[in-house]
Amino acid sequence: MNTYRITERNQVKRLPKRASYDRETVYKILDAAFVCHVGFVVEGQPFVIPTAYGRDGDKIYIHGATKSRMLAHMEQGLPVCLTVTHLDGIVVARSTFHSSVNYRSVMVFGQAKPVGNDRKSYALEVITNQIINGRWEEARPPHEKELKGTTVLAIEIESASAKIRTGGPNDEKEDYDLDIWAGIIPLRMIAGTPVADEWLREGLPIPPSAKNYQYAKGK
Amino acid sequence: MNTYRITERNQVKRLPKRASYDRETVYKILDAAFVCHVGFVVEGQPFVIPTAYGRDGDKIYIHGATKSRMLAHMEQGLPVCLTVTHLDGIVVARSTFHSSVNYRSVMVFGQAKPVGNDRKSYALEVITNQIINGRWEEARPPHEKELKGTTVLAIEIESASAKIRTGGPNDEKEDYDLDIWAGIIPLRMIAGTPVADEWLREGLPIPPSAKNYQYAKGK
Repeated sequence: MNTYRITERNQVKRLPKRASYDRETVYKILDAAFVCHVGFVVEGQPFVIPTAYGRDGDKIYIHGATKSRMLAHMEQGLPVCLTVTHLDGIVVARSTFHSSVNYRSVMVFGQAKPVGNDRKSYALEVITNQIINGRWEEARPPHEKELKGTTVLAIEIESASAKIRTGGPNDEKEDYDLDIWAGIIPLRMIAGTPVADEWLREGLPIPPSAKNYQYAKGK
Repeated sequence: MNTYRITERNQVKRLPKRASYDRETVYKILDAAFVCHVGFVVEGQPFVIPTAYGRDGDKIYIHGATKSRMLAHMEQGLPVCLTVTHLDGIVVARSTFHSSVNYRSVMVFGQAKPVGNDRKSYALEVITNQIINGRWEEARPPHEKELKGTTVLAIEIESASAKIRTGGPNDEKEDYDLDIWAGIIPLRMIAGTPVADEWLREGLPIPPSAKNYQYAKGK
């Protein structure tokens, strides 16, 4: 299936023309970031926590310390909503009413389930390489003890939707005659030059993963 | 009070040394962005939606179309968790286990309440000027009809916490001898040159708000 089924849960109600349920569109937005905001509920109270993630097919992996509150709650199979947003620009309209923001976002719905010991290392590889492609192959792999101290959760994408806004302002017809400037201020995330750790062994060159790093290059 | 009271709800459980309950720290992180991820619960299902916001004292304003699902649910006085995250860099450690991310984030807890007609225009001014400082004074103010079609919610900050990670990797002692590069890849959001709307009246100069725009300059 190349699109996610539209249900009450994932249907974009507001400005549906900005919505997409296309799997490739959802994947592309997910693959261009590595920090999501994951929401879950404890006794009626919502919590929204920023966390790193990695996508592998229709699975999203997140991880953390075994004693973290988020993971302790979520691994009970709670429903989660995982949202990723790229901020692409400010839409400067002639009217305050039509001022807006350009963005690409995805909402993923599913349940978080613990990843067994046999798959933990693989899931961590997915997360590590989503943050910085190729780093898993360069860095020291996790010890048994480190793996034990890490909880990894997999969220199977049950349902998802993307929402995208691009382009300039859509002002009211009569406002185009006003003497008010309108346009876009583009925004983007950029990576600076890698900074070596102060305790780095002398003579170690910057590895390809860091040297060629570009934010949002995807996997 | 200069700090938020620590309760079960806002207490940072994991890596508490990265936590802050200081009001000024929370404000500073909130003021350096204008898109948050707001979480709310409908029949046990969490939703996390990216949306623009503005802060005024201990109040956070968000807005949207009157018929939006998010606002329709939230204006019933639902508990919300509103999270703002700045991504500052990738921490490239010698071990995959200590690889991390530098960030500044804030979680705000409160209840969303509708803003009455008499305060709507003020709240929209706060949001508009948080997105692009000074724009409210330049743009065409909202008509009565536009105000009616806009729902504005205020979230009084009942409780909040900040979490910040800075600096390089914290590797295991024995790993400092490995022939593995470590350091930081800095990340930041930058604004490009403003792009004029294709229907812009001829001869209109770029206004100060857009010309001098810098992301995360704060209010």
